[in-house]
Amino acid sequence: MRYFVIVGHKAVTTGDFKLDDIAGGAGRLDILIRCVNSAFFLSHDLRKDTELFLVLQGGEDPPKTVRMSGAELRYLNPDERSTSSLIRNALIKKLDTGEKRSSPGIYVSRMSFSDVISMLSEKGELIYLKEDGSDIRETEIPDDTVFVISDNRDLTEDEEGLLLSFDPHKVSIGPHSLHADHCIIVVHNEIDRKVH
Amino acid sequence: MRYFVIVGHKAVTTGDFKLDDIAGGAGRLDILIRCVNSAFFLSHDLRKDTELFLVLQGGEDPPKTVRMSGAELRYLNPDERSTSSLIRNALIKKLDTGEKRSSPGIYVSRMSFSDVISMLSEKGELIYLKEDGSDIRETEIPDDTVFVISDNRDLTEDEEGLLLSFDPHKVSIGPHSLHADHCIIVVHNEIDRKVH
Repeated sequence: MRYFVIVGHKAVTTGDFKLDDIAGGAGRLDILIRCVNSAFFLSHDLRKDTELFLVLQGGEDPPKTVRMSGAELRYLNPDERSTSSLIRNALIKKLDTGEKRSSPGIYVSRMSFSDVISMLSEKGELIYLKEDGSDIRETEIPDDTVFVISDNRDLTEDEEGLLLSFDPHKVSIGPHSLHADHCIIVVHNEIDRKVH
Repeated sequence: MRYFVIVGHKAVTTGDFKLDDIAGGAGRLDILIRCVNSAFFLSHDLRKDTELFLVLQGGEDPPKTVRMSGAELRYLNPDERSTSSLIRNALIKKLDTGEKRSSPGIYVSRMSFSDVISMLSEKGELIYLKEDGSDIRETEIPDDTVFVISDNRDLTEDEEGLLLSFDPHKVSIGPHSLHADHCIIVVHNEIDRKVH
């Protein structure tokens, strides 16, 4: 399995945002929405071997984590607006403990970044995508890998400390620093080639 | 220079579409909009060595071509809605012969696919991104290259015939067929590495 964890430092955690304003009032939710597209879409299929964790840390009810499972996903379209609507449906759900499903393949919980990393560290090898990491083309990628990417801000010192305490590989994807959604495309391409 | 030509077979050619409906009423304009994002965005910069040609063939006033020049672009944000608004501003322009500028780095004209390919064939080597092409990692990419990609439909027989008459290289980017915007990311990453 390919797991991707994206941290949305200011991203909304309630469902009362406007679909017209995901890049503004929704705390750069647009960045995370584009990661959904990159994580799952093939030309005529969805990537069933991928799970995406959007860790939302902004707005009025943080933290929340939206988990998306490629094997179960339905109703996902590539455009930002319709995906935002699916995420909004998740954020409207009343939460106590545990996960709630908002639509097929989309789950929401109160998991924090720390909860997500701890949980996934038992499922696969952690890879921290960083400009100063080793080149992904020279790196062995195990079958089960957890890629951790930040949004338009770097991980905070606390977040990075937590992640580094799990001793992840630091991996770089090329000579330029790219947006999170673009990083996912390069990672997928590399693993597609290795699997092939 | 890196040139990308994207064919939007059903994409609108007038400015009267709704920003809320770019994936529907605007003839899958969303696909082309995502190509804009992929073509130009680095993490904290725009790719100045890139030009993008959106060949719009649908709607009520085809054909039109929107040309975007990375060296001159301003007011470009990564989200689909704001980019759609820039494209709409271009499509509102009254056209006769030649190009008109709608905002810095964005130009619109009545060029057809054939006009665009003929013009660009003199500026760089044509590469047709196709699943059955040679692997991009094994292919020499000259400094000036023109990548031709279709939207969610294949090139028509006529379009492909026209393109093949210029004897392009056929190049593939990996084992899976990907959306046009994802192809652009992989191409950029490959050239970034070769240049570096």
